[in-house]
Amino acid sequence: MSKTITITGAAGQIGYQLAFRIASGQLLGTDEKINLNLLEITPALNALNGVAMELEDCAFSTLNKITVTDNPDIAFQDTDFSFLVGAKPRGPGMERSDLLIGNAAIFSLQGKALNDNASRDVKVLVVGNPANTNALIAMSNAPDLRPNSFTAMMRLDHNRAIAQLAHKTGVHSNEIKQMIIWGNHSTTQYPDINHALIGDQKINTLVDHDWIKNEFIPKVQVRGAEIIKARGLSSAASAASAAIDHMNNWELGTAEDDWVSMAIPSDGSYGIAEGIIYSFPVTCSNGQYEIIQGLEIDDFSREAMHASESELLEEKEAIKHLL
Amino acid sequence: MSKTITITGAAGQIGYQLAFRIASGQLLGTDEKINLNLLEITPALNALNGVAMELEDCAFSTLNKITVTDNPDIAFQDTDFSFLVGAKPRGPGMERSDLLIGNAAIFSLQGKALNDNASRDVKVLVVGNPANTNALIAMSNAPDLRPNSFTAMMRLDHNRAIAQLAHKTGVHSNEIKQMIIWGNHSTTQYPDINHALIGDQKINTLVDHDWIKNEFIPKVQVRGAEIIKARGLSSAASAASAAIDHMNNWELGTAEDDWVSMAIPSDGSYGIAEGIIYSFPVTCSNGQYEIIQGLEIDDFSREAMHASESELLEEKEAIKHLL
Repeated sequence: MSKTITITGAAGQIGYQLAFRIASGQLLGTDEKINLNLLEITPALNALNGVAMELEDCAFSTLNKITVTDNPDIAFQDTDFSFLVGAKPRGPGMERSDLLIGNAAIFSLQGKALNDNASRDVKVLVVGNPANTNALIAMSNAPDLRPNSFTAMMRLDHNRAIAQLAHKTGVHSNEIKQMIIWGNHSTTQYPDINHALIGDQKINTLVDHDWIKNEFIPKVQVRGAEIIKARGLSSAASAASAAIDHMNNWELGTAEDDWVSMAIPSDGSYGIAEGIIYSFPVTCSNGQYEIIQGLEIDDFSREAMHASESELLEEKEAIKHLL
Repeated sequence: MSKTITITGAAGQIGYQLAFRIASGQLLGTDEKINLNLLEITPALNALNGVAMELEDCAFSTLNKITVTDNPDIAFQDTDFSFLVGAKPRGPGMERSDLLIGNAAIFSLQGKALNDNASRDVKVLVVGNPANTNALIAMSNAPDLRPNSFTAMMRLDHNRAIAQLAHKTGVHSNEIKQMIIWGNHSTTQYPDINHALIGDQKINTLVDHDWIKNEFIPKVQVRGAEIIKARGLSSAASAASAAIDHMNNWELGTAEDDWVSMAIPSDGSYGIAEGIIYSFPVTCSNGQYEIIQGLEIDDFSREAMHASESELLEEKEAIKHLL
């Protein structure tokens, strides 16, 4: 038995991190043999062949077979786990609606290819931005797959928020539990610490509301830009790491005393409109996620959650002719 | 208890792969907490800060503390494992002797800093080229450390050779045992399959001598150039992966039925001159390596081993005033 894992945009910066960490056994453990299907656009196939040569040169014990292709039907053949990383970046002078439509073309094609070729139990994680709406498009184009097979990545934001809280409170990031990111993977996301714990202690009793509102939340929202400023390149290794965390928890389960943030098809929980891919706190077991229910939401949170919902509804409106 | 791991050139392509794989627990296992000391040249400190921010954003359970510095004395403070990755690359019109001398300055400084600051049981792996002679310089400048603390990386060549043999014989790379790379990490290296096995079968009974001599050996020797041609960038992820394999085996031991190739201070085994860092087949246990003795060496092998030895003696001659 082996599992097939697809990475799109596999010659890019995130893909180059993701492929080696997955091939070394960090997604499913070192006992599970894996096949890696790597997809790129045609002009990047030469670079992708170089990535495949390097993967071969690692002599990984878990890596069974590598497939390099520019054909989505081949890339998604029998795929069990698909990381949709490749996306069209925002070019100079490009409107947000152009970006949405440019990506919609890619993700509708990949949704169809998933629909026709993937394992019926496939788990899909969209990393390429605008991730939530890209996931919605892929899902809408895959009517034969279960909608809850499609997710978008909020885990990088979730991990970033934990790192900031650990820094502020002087504990190891391991000790921060029950963080939540609500909404869209964009600057409207809402990092909510009202339920977060260190041991039995609520973190919102340890830090003041001004710091949360004026420093913590904006810092998590614009962390990506801060990384670009320092590195001269966007987050790649940390994004790949978060993608592995997301998929690993989804497949193998979350820790008993914790939850994670995943953008998933809204089922109306917490009054969020159905028909968008919105981030909720979830636990995972037996390969399925479940939304944490019954959390108390204060007015500040309600407003922030609604703002990100509105943005997602606007994004959906811009590409509705493609759904 | 925690271990301190130093990476030099940590904002470079190899360092960017290495730091995240190590921080995620792939060097020492996920039960061992680690401190990462990241060294860069001053102009790269901003980029290195970006790498540190991304490491923080991963919220790795094994990562205790990150230190970013351009000061070798800080970078090597109490270091248990040092990956010397940063090196001066060969510029246009630069002679090989200029390259040797340019790197000698870096590695003599780092050898002194290791001598003054490192754990007395430090394990040093030189990845930056010319790796073997750089390791010799570092060792010579650290008289208070045991010479066998200094090694250079041949594991990428070793893994590449295994991958090629697996490809040729149609087995998984796991099944190829007892490969050897002798000599220098350069095009004079000698990939020797005379002792290599698949199960109980000697591989040299499965492939013909012409293929070994005219295809296999040159392919392993120039694999680096082949990767550059495809990717447009030199091997980074596979080099980082090999560096982890090397240090992991050195610390935690080699498999019972196998050995690995490591460039270490020659003790005269197989008639190789002492005073150079030369690659031998070794087993590791209890944190120490031991050269495999008593292998039969045929004339073809003897000549190839001697050619690589001669190159290392010439490299040594070019930098002898710095030893």
